[in-house]
Parts: sequence; C-alpha cells; structure tokens
Amino acid sequence: MKKNYIVLGLTAFLLLAGFSSSYAATNVTEPTHFSYDHQDEWEFVSGKMQSPINIVTSQAVKYKGSDLTLKYDKVGTSVVDDGHSIQVGLRGTAEIDDRTFSLKQVHFHAVSEHTINGKHFPLEGHFVHEAQDGRKAVIGVMFKAGKANTAFQQILDAAKSNASGEKGIKIDKLDIQKLLPANLGYYHYLGSLTTPPLTENVEWYILKQPVELSQKQLDEFYQYYDDNHRNLQELNGRTVFIKS
Amino acid sequence: MKKNYIVLGLTAFLLLAGFSSSYAATNVTEPTHFSYDHQDEWEFVSGKMQSPINIVTSQAVKYKGSDLTLKYDKVGTSVVDDGHSIQVGLRGTAEIDDRTFSLKQVHFHAVSEHTINGKHFPLEGHFVHEAQDGRKAVIGVMFKAGKANTAFQQILDAAKSNASGEKGIKIDKLDIQKLLPANLGYYHYLGSLTTPPLTENVEWYILKQPVELSQKQLDEFYQYYDDNHRNLQELNGRTVFIKS
Ligand SMILES: [Zn+2]
Ligand SMILES: [Zn+2]
Repeated sequence: MKKNYIVLGLTAFLLLAGFSSSYAATNVTEPTHFSYDHQDEWEFVSGKMQSPINIVTSQAVKYKGSDLTLKYDKVGTSVVDDGHSIQVGLRGTAEIDDRTFSLKQVHFHAVSEHTINGKHFPLEGHFVHEAQDGRKAVIGVMFKAGKANTAFQQILDAAKSNASGEKGIKIDKLDIQKLLPANLGYYHYLGSLTTPPLTENVEWYILKQPVELSQKQLDEFYQYYDDNHRNLQELNGRTVFIKS
Repeated sequence: MKKNYIVLGLTAFLLLAGFSSSYAATNVTEPTHFSYDHQDEWEFVSGKMQSPINIVTSQAVKYKGSDLTLKYDKVGTSVVDDGHSIQVGLRGTAEIDDRTFSLKQVHFHAVSEHTINGKHFPLEGHFVHEAQDGRKAVIGVMFKAGKANTAFQQILDAAKSNASGEKGIKIDKLDIQKLLPANLGYYHYLGSLTTPPLTENVEWYILKQPVELSQKQLDEFYQYYDDNHRNLQELNGRTVFIKS
C-alpha cells in the first residue's frame, strides 16, 4: 500500500495551474490525510446539514429539477396530538424530481421553523414523504392570517375531541389539497429532520406561496402548541435553490 | 407549550389496536422524549448509514426505481494518482431514478469495498456523480479476471507515466463505456462516502454484472494500490434493493 500525504501538494498544483474544473477531482477540498492502515482514526463529518434554516431569497439559485406533482386524495384519516404537534396520518403520492414518494403524515409548527428573509410565518405545515429506499422529502407550507380554511378546521375539530392526546380521532374525508397553495413553486435544499433523531438525509421543498388560515384558527392551534419550532441552524455553505 | 412524554403510550395504543399502517405516524419508532425548551439536549443520530456493506443477494428487495441511463462520452481526461487511488477526472451525465446527475470522476479500490454474499472482487470502480443540489450517487462496478480491457489499459499507461503522483497525465480519448458491463441491473441502498469525510447522503448503485480485466492488468494496478479499501460497515437495519 502506498504512502499518503501526496494529494495536498497535487491539489495546490492543480489550482495554481488553473486546471479545467471538469478535469479536477471533486474531492480536492476534502480532507486527504488518511491511511487505510488506521481506519479507526478516520473522522466522520456530520451535523453540518441541519434544518430549519433562514432562506435568503436573493441568494437562491435557479433549480433545474422538476415541478412538484402532488396527488393527495380526500381520505379518511386520524388526527393525533403526539405531544410535540398535531399530526395527521395520511396517504397519497407525490412526484418529486420525477420520483415517486409516499405521503406519510402532516404536522404543524408554531411559529414557522423556516424563515424567509429572516421573517417567521405564524404556522408551518410539514408534509412528510418517504421513497421506497428510505429517502425522505418534506414539503413545507407556510400559513398566514387571512380567510378561514375548511380542511384545517376539520383538523382543529378533531384535535378538540382529543385534547388529552391519548388517542387518535378519525376524520371521514379530509380534503388535504386545501392545505396547499395554488402555485407549487418552491425553495429547495438538503437538510435534516427538525426533531430527534435529526437525521440528515432529507430533501426540503418549502413552497413559496403561503396558504391562508383565519386568525381564530391560528389562535385555536396555539392553545395546543405555540412554541414547537426548532431553532434556526447554520447553512454551512449549502446552496438554497428556487423553482418558480 | 405542552408537556411531552405522551406519545409513547399512544404508540403502544396504536400498535395494540392494530391501527391501519397507512394511518399510523411514521415516527412511532423514533425517540420522542424531547422538549423544545431544551434543544441543546437533543441527540443527533448519525453514523448508522455507512459504506461499504456486504450485499446478501437473497435478502435484496425488488426496487421500483428506474433503470440507469449512462451517457458517458469518449472524452479527453486526466489521470491522477491522488495518494489513495488512481483517479480519472471525467465528464458525462447519468439519469439515475429519472434525475440528472453529472459524472465527476472514477477511481478504483483493491480489493473491492463492497462484497456480494461475503465475497470480494479483485477490484471495484466508483463512478462518482453529483446532482445540482449536491446529492451524491456512486455507481460501483466490480471487476474480475478475464480478458484485457482497452480503456483500463489507457488508465494504467497514464498512471505509469506518472508513478510519482505529482501531476495528472492527460488521455486524449478515453472510452469510459468500456468500463461498464452490458447489463446495468444493480443493487441499491443508501450509504456514505467510503473515505473521509464519510458523508452519509450518498445513493449507491452497485452493478450486478462484473467487467473483465486481465490478470496482468490487475497485477499492474496492484503495483500502485493493493489494499485501498475501507472495512465493511454495519447494515443497521437498512434494506438493500435489487433492480434487474
Ligand atoms: Zn416538522
Ligand atoms: Zn471509492
């Protein structure tokens, strides 16, 4: 086996020589001082891609990925107060970047976890999806004060029958589409779950257009949770993308 | 803000009551003892999705994702001995699960890093791809002793001109397709980079059909590296998928 410690000098050479970036190795900035004889000393870097984040819209880069196609049926469902949020178990499929994800559940954070240009929204809904291989994608919906929302009222009414949080309350037909805006343009970045275990293999799609709830509905939600949002996390050099 | 510690009892209830799995929340097995007042105490779970792994073919689950479409052109390129492997900078695009990835580089491990049913191959090539948003996908190709491979010989010849590893050697036209098998059926799982920083947001596609190199070519590669493979990592409950 060969000695190590050669590549840093090489990297400097490549950079100084102005090598075409299409020829340069992708890992020139990665740590390169490691030895196959001492694998137990290898450092595993993680925790640098956490969520939520502040989205600075002027720095978002145009995304080449596909539009979202959300096929959420009107379904019977159950509403559960799980001790951290009001959560709705759901079925449905989403085409995200041309792959099929299954919708698993929707829950809400007050105030919003993500901020747009430093500004919180009064509520943020998380539509949690999973692909067959375990990849997770969360579609985030921002809510603002305005007209009352009939689907959100169904959820509030179910939660009211279940204030103790000890069992799920069924809803016969929840029109989940009513919780989505007309325009599905989004901000996209790679992040994490925002509750433990904070797993980092999560694709985030934060919809740009907010959905209206009445102030009365917001206040009713705040009776259950008014501060169940994770603190903002460092971007650590990640790019946020925008898809109109 | 509400008190916590409610959901575990609820989870038990849901399981005992035989709730439809389409209604059950996805996070019933996740840790739920956390408080928004003490976010600094939240435990971030990571390091459970490392690569390489042993692939047990009899336990692989049929994958619903798409076939791979690899559009690797014959390109001028450079071969670099980076101190850990022989690495080839490349251009090309791959359609992986219907998304577009850019091919960044190819490098080789001896012996193979992944094992199939406990068996190493004499060499494993890693075709490293990246999507616009930073998602990484690595296509792994197993090599076995057989007929000589003209593309691999081009790489060996370039490496020979550059034994000191101090600069990259250019190749005018490398027919990278010759390093791929005819059948692009694969094993798929979610894992990590196999060198530091061991980042975990990596999709692995290990091609089922090996490619032949002559024993002379393998021996020539071993003069540079004969033991640059990471130890096998725990599966930790991950599923390996198979796409024929
Ligand atoms: Zn959430
Ligand atoms: Zn590799």
